[in-house]
Amino acid sequence: MLEPESIVRLEDDAVVLLDQRRLPDEVVEVRCRTAAEVAAAISAMVVRGAPAIGVAAAYGLALAVRNGEDAEAADAVLRASRPTAVNLAWALDRMRAEPTPEHARRLHAEEVDRCRRMAAHAAALLEPRTRALTHCNAGGLATAGYGSAVGALVAAWERGLLGHVWVDETRPLLQGARLTAWELEAAAIPHSVIADSAAASFMSAGEVDCVVTGADRIAANGDVANKIGTYSLAVLARHHGIPFYVVAPTSTVDLATATGDAIPIEERDPAEVTTRFRARNPAFDVTPAALVTAIVTEGGVHRPPFQASLAGALLAA
Amino acid sequence: MLEPESIVRLEDDAVVLLDQRRLPDEVVEVRCRTAAEVAAAISAMVVRGAPAIGVAAAYGLALAVRNGEDAEAADAVLRASRPTAVNLAWALDRMRAEPTPEHARRLHAEEVDRCRRMAAHAAALLEPRTRALTHCNAGGLATAGYGSAVGALVAAWERGLLGHVWVDETRPLLQGARLTAWELEAAAIPHSVIADSAAASFMSAGEVDCVVTGADRIAANGDVANKIGTYSLAVLARHHGIPFYVVAPTSTVDLATATGDAIPIEERDPAEVTTRFRARNPAFDVTPAALVTAIVTEGGVHRPPFQASLAGALLAA
Repeated sequence: MLEPESIVRLEDDAVVLLDQRRLPDEVVEVRCRTAAEVAAAISAMVVRGAPAIGVAAAYGLALAVRNGEDAEAADAVLRASRPTAVNLAWALDRMRAEPTPEHARRLHAEEVDRCRRMAAHAAALLEPRTRALTHCNAGGLATAGYGSAVGALVAAWERGLLGHVWVDETRPLLQGARLTAWELEAAAIPHSVIADSAAASFMSAGEVDCVVTGADRIAANGDVANKIGTYSLAVLARHHGIPFYVVAPTSTVDLATATGDAIPIEERDPAEVTTRFRARNPAFDVTPAALVTAIVTEGGVHRPPFQASLAGALLAA
Repeated sequence: MLEPESIVRLEDDAVVLLDQRRLPDEVVEVRCRTAAEVAAAISAMVVRGAPAIGVAAAYGLALAVRNGEDAEAADAVLRASRPTAVNLAWALDRMRAEPTPEHARRLHAEEVDRCRRMAAHAAALLEPRTRALTHCNAGGLATAGYGSAVGALVAAWERGLLGHVWVDETRPLLQGARLTAWELEAAAIPHSVIADSAAASFMSAGEVDCVVTGADRIAANGDVANKIGTYSLAVLARHHGIPFYVVAPTSTVDLATATGDAIPIEERDPAEVTTRFRARNPAFDVTPAALVTAIVTEGGVHRPPFQASLAGALLAA
């Protein structure tokens, strides 16, 4: 597994980020010396994945305060760097009372620990020889540590439960084909990258036993915002009678957002899709709770109706 | 619209093909001087689209016979160039009795005429201000002339019925983002390219009124083989209560194939998806007839059950 510090860490003068835009071809780091530089790196997706950007923002705030930047301004620029994942606000809210490097490192370590615990819960859902399909990258890279959906698959593999992973390439930025495949190859887990639009065919052919994804924000009722294409998979999974699992730490659950309708959906530069013609580029979609078989947090496996169970997990966390 | 001869034509010494792999960046032609060269161009997708490869094969056979190549060998190499579209076999069967340039040109002109007739039938299905979603390229490029699904959209636009076209980019080879968007731009039809995985979101938001695709082979019962991702759209359309229309000439209907299960699905080089990791790359999928609202041929609009109606259209053709 990737060392958490290799993905995001705080040094004396900078937040250091593994540049996920250039993986897997190049392993290079970006050094951010101000809160604004950290925010720009989050916006540009140098670091991406809901838990990882929360951790990066926590380090960014700690760096800014240590450097004598205005804390309110630093908080604001980091909070506004991306709209959909709630983990940014969650991490910054937690840091507010004690915006220190030590606190940010503790928050990071706790997030990795949450991933390990929920991965164990999620792995227990899988049957032997499961052929799982995953979308985007909900791995170590996305969580600044162990991984959520991919963490669950790694835990299942270690327990001898995993047969194969279908990796949606995840257009337009190919986080599946670039990042998830890279992590699975490093873990020696059998996998095949597929075009996003091919998932339905493999489901229809009986070659997919479950879908496992992460989340960027989970509303109080269990509606799940995640990478564009997730909702499509949930509809397809329901059509084919395949369980659809969401694996995410409680830092991703937003009790202040009642339903998915209220989650802001980031629309990114159309040039990520095509530079030649007109395009639309929503980066996320919302999967209604009714299409979700189970949500797994570090608190355990939540089944529908999700409301009380998710609220309980947050209270316990 | 594109002139049919600009897409594929027979000259004295060669079948000349517009190189669709290099569109829209470069408009260049490939000259094929033997049946084997035409077959290689079809395999490599210099020319693609079920009706267009049928026309190219007809010209390839006529060229080969005129050049004194063995007719049986030429037929065999052309017939084997791609497995899924039935139009290759259809065109070569038709050419067998009279493998001349004149016959091939007549077959080409008839195919373009079929497209115009079915486009008119299909356009009549659309309500004013329809926002249609299409996949891959079923345009002039794919049919060596007017277009099937895109032909229907052009006809609807000319009748004032079309509001917007959502263009699936269609990974891995991006026929939507490269070819369909290019054709729509040339026709000044409002359109947006989207990632394939975003279609479900736009459906859920009420921004898609119908899905319109072409076909590579239609089985006798109405099961439809088409570009990978078509089946996914059909499931999503059904989930959202959106009509799903297939527009294809009778040359695409294969009465000898009872159901979609018997249609061979081409699996292309995984390197089209990713060169770095393991991948799977089925180029087509099969949409069961039960998910198809209507199939439109030059014979008219066919509604379920399709069997008798499709057979009748072929008898009349």
